[in-house]
Amino acid sequence: MKKIINQPADVVDQMLSGLTRAYPSFVRRLADTDVLVRTVSTSQVQLISGGGSGHEPSHAGFVGDGMLSAAVCGQVFTSPTPDQIYEAAKAVDTGAGVFFIIKNYSGDVMNFDMAKDMAELDGIAVDFVIVDDDIAVENSTYTQGKRGVAGTVLVHKILGDAARNGASLSDIKAQADKLIPQIHTLAVALSGATVPEVGKPGFVLADDEIEFGVGIHGEPGYRREKMAPSQALAKELVTKLLASYDGDNTSSYAILVNGMGATPLMEQFIFINDVLDLLSAAGITVAFQKVGNLMTSIDMAGISLTMVRLSDPAWLDALNADVTTIAWG
Amino acid sequence: MKKIINQPADVVDQMLSGLTRAYPSFVRRLADTDVLVRTVSTSQVQLISGGGSGHEPSHAGFVGDGMLSAAVCGQVFTSPTPDQIYEAAKAVDTGAGVFFIIKNYSGDVMNFDMAKDMAELDGIAVDFVIVDDDIAVENSTYTQGKRGVAGTVLVHKILGDAARNGASLSDIKAQADKLIPQIHTLAVALSGATVPEVGKPGFVLADDEIEFGVGIHGEPGYRREKMAPSQALAKELVTKLLASYDGDNTSSYAILVNGMGATPLMEQFIFINDVLDLLSAAGITVAFQKVGNLMTSIDMAGISLTMVRLSDPAWLDALNADVTTIAWG
Repeated sequence: MKKIINQPADVVDQMLSGLTRAYPSFVRRLADTDVLVRTVSTSQVQLISGGGSGHEPSHAGFVGDGMLSAAVCGQVFTSPTPDQIYEAAKAVDTGAGVFFIIKNYSGDVMNFDMAKDMAELDGIAVDFVIVDDDIAVENSTYTQGKRGVAGTVLVHKILGDAARNGASLSDIKAQADKLIPQIHTLAVALSGATVPEVGKPGFVLADDEIEFGVGIHGEPGYRREKMAPSQALAKELVTKLLASYDGDNTSSYAILVNGMGATPLMEQFIFINDVLDLLSAAGITVAFQKVGNLMTSIDMAGISLTMVRLSDPAWLDALNADVTTIAWG
Repeated sequence: MKKIINQPADVVDQMLSGLTRAYPSFVRRLADTDVLVRTVSTSQVQLISGGGSGHEPSHAGFVGDGMLSAAVCGQVFTSPTPDQIYEAAKAVDTGAGVFFIIKNYSGDVMNFDMAKDMAELDGIAVDFVIVDDDIAVENSTYTQGKRGVAGTVLVHKILGDAARNGASLSDIKAQADKLIPQIHTLAVALSGATVPEVGKPGFVLADDEIEFGVGIHGEPGYRREKMAPSQALAKELVTKLLASYDGDNTSSYAILVNGMGATPLMEQFIFINDVLDLLSAAGITVAFQKVGNLMTSIDMAGISLTMVRLSDPAWLDALNADVTTIAWG
């Protein structure tokens, strides 16, 4: 393992320290926690997300006006504890309630649920949504049902805009329930990720091998095969994603091409070029595109493609709305 | 070589196609060129940069109001040709002239100079600056003098703000000449980069080995040694950088921690945390920080640290000014 770190046990603490020192105008760290919050002055519903670290810039990079109010950062690939989530809720609630955006991992779901109970005892109104956008597999190493992956960032963006525009907690919940089934993601990995405290990759692929459907913690996918050109990888992902929408090519879609951490932007742009060719050939209108490392898996090489069927026109406006965050742009 | 590409010869063309299709509101591609421009409506001086591809998001990611007006994209690690640079100048000039920001590589310097002559024959006023911020070595594989590296992005930002605020061509030239000597960068590599058409890394480091002072095309640095903790890497870079300012700790500085392509944000934040500790211990005020993959070397693992001595208070305002680009944020 060759990583720019100090003691493996300290990576999250030192990373959060670096992040808050680098961007003090965006986030601050709640004392004695791994919770990053922004200063909230509005009475809006406050969105909170979080999960294990190792997915940077998720989620702290998306704290800001029009997206999240707090990010709760667990240890690497480890759920944050309920007390930390509870501290986040107390810190940002301004009376309109808080809304949790939870990626579907058993530990996250359980801990956010316990934090909800704790916050409600304090009189804070809490609701939540569980994001399960990864269509690769049903059930997984850490998950009942489908996993939550890169589409979560688009949930931050769309619900964050609704919250900023004054939606109530029940409005946001209704919007979220409508949105989640329309977000589908599928990934391909070229290499495994190395958790610093483990010191070796979670899985190993041969020099000419890839795996489709890998999760953001290296959970197994659905097929290993030989490396293929970008066009072939795009075809595999697009075909499966379109099938997940029953081939619906009359709706318009938003897409996100997400790098897993070690994949250069050069490859991400080549890949989206191939994706757009395929979607265009399928008669599909893409109304929004984004490319970059938004939901990573430490140093994994690989890429994911997320599609959002834009059933509600407000979602496109929300995706395009200006925000002030470290990582959305 | 395991990369998400199609034919190696097509990577730049397809990358630029993907980039412009992904971000049509930011950049468009001049027909039959590898030049990306924005629509320019103001009579300001227009900034143009460029160079070999493989450094994404540089430079196209910094085209936008308050930064560049055009990016000229060569083949991978290869200077763009004079005719392409000339096309960029013609496309964006609105009468106030164009200003070239050139990284110090022999090919780039020569080709931008020829483009200057071509544009001047058309009556376009042209001036330029050569960025040579890398303090690692004098002269290098492709360079007379010092190399131009990540500090170039800060030149885009500072001069871009001046141009937007109405500075004349000669004002910008004067500002640039004052700025360049105050920008110093130093890098450490953990792995080499693989040019797609070459198919293997430009250099190979052992599993426990690093190299200080490597350039953004894999040019040799000044020392190979065993991998060390982030704190030790930070100490090496900070010590050399401070020495390059004669230890001046009464000025304030801006810093950029730049990932080389395959280095996770987690490591970049840990590294800046260590850098800030060292600068603080040296009594130095850091007035601006930025972290991310801004000037990469394809899939190189590694990091660079750039410092700018803020001799002119306007530079800090310029760094903080809002811009609309794909990659600055």
